[in-house]
Amino acid sequence: MPARLSEDERREALAHLAGWALVEGREAIQRRFVFKDFNEAFGFMARVALAAERMNHHPEWSNVYKTVDITLATHDAGGLTELDVKLAHKIDQLAGRP
Amino acid sequence: MPARLSEDERREALAHLAGWALVEGREAIQRRFVFKDFNEAFGFMARVALAAERMNHHPEWSNVYKTVDITLATHDAGGLTELDVKLAHKIDQLAGRP
Repeated sequence: MPARLSEDERREALAHLAGWALVEGREAIQRRFVFKDFNEAFGFMARVALAAERMNHHPEWSNVYKTVDITLATHDAGGLTELDVKLAHKIDQLAGRP
Repeated sequence: MPARLSEDERREALAHLAGWALVEGREAIQRRFVFKDFNEAFGFMARVALAAERMNHHPEWSNVYKTVDITLATHDAGGLTELDVKLAHKIDQLAGRP
């Protein structure tokens, strides 16, 4: 289990994750992805699910038609860790939106 | 586009959808499904996604690890229609929880 990031490490990580923002009132990061339609949105989710399963680190997410909202945090660490940063970069890559 | 269900039709439909409940403050129905792990939860979501795409009627849903929360409504009709009832039955069948 990786350690929680320090405030400096969080700031540094977010500086390299353009589309992501800290969640209000919670140590987690979130990003919204909007696609052309449900087919594209769920295709993206399937690719993220496979990546998450491989990392054994899973997103909290919701989907309404073409929109996917993703929140990342490491429950066992009580906040953000390197795992979240790594998964966020992978998700951006899978969405084609680095 | 099917018509909105009347109150009697809604009641009748819900009587045959044991796990589903009306959403507070909104004409929609919801159900929570809890699986063994993320693999089972997302496998279920993939099957629901294919069924939804075939019906051209899509759920609003969220997933956190082994839990999937699903809300159904027909946006274009401004409430519940026969499409939601049909998709709810299909989802129960795919979850193996009629």
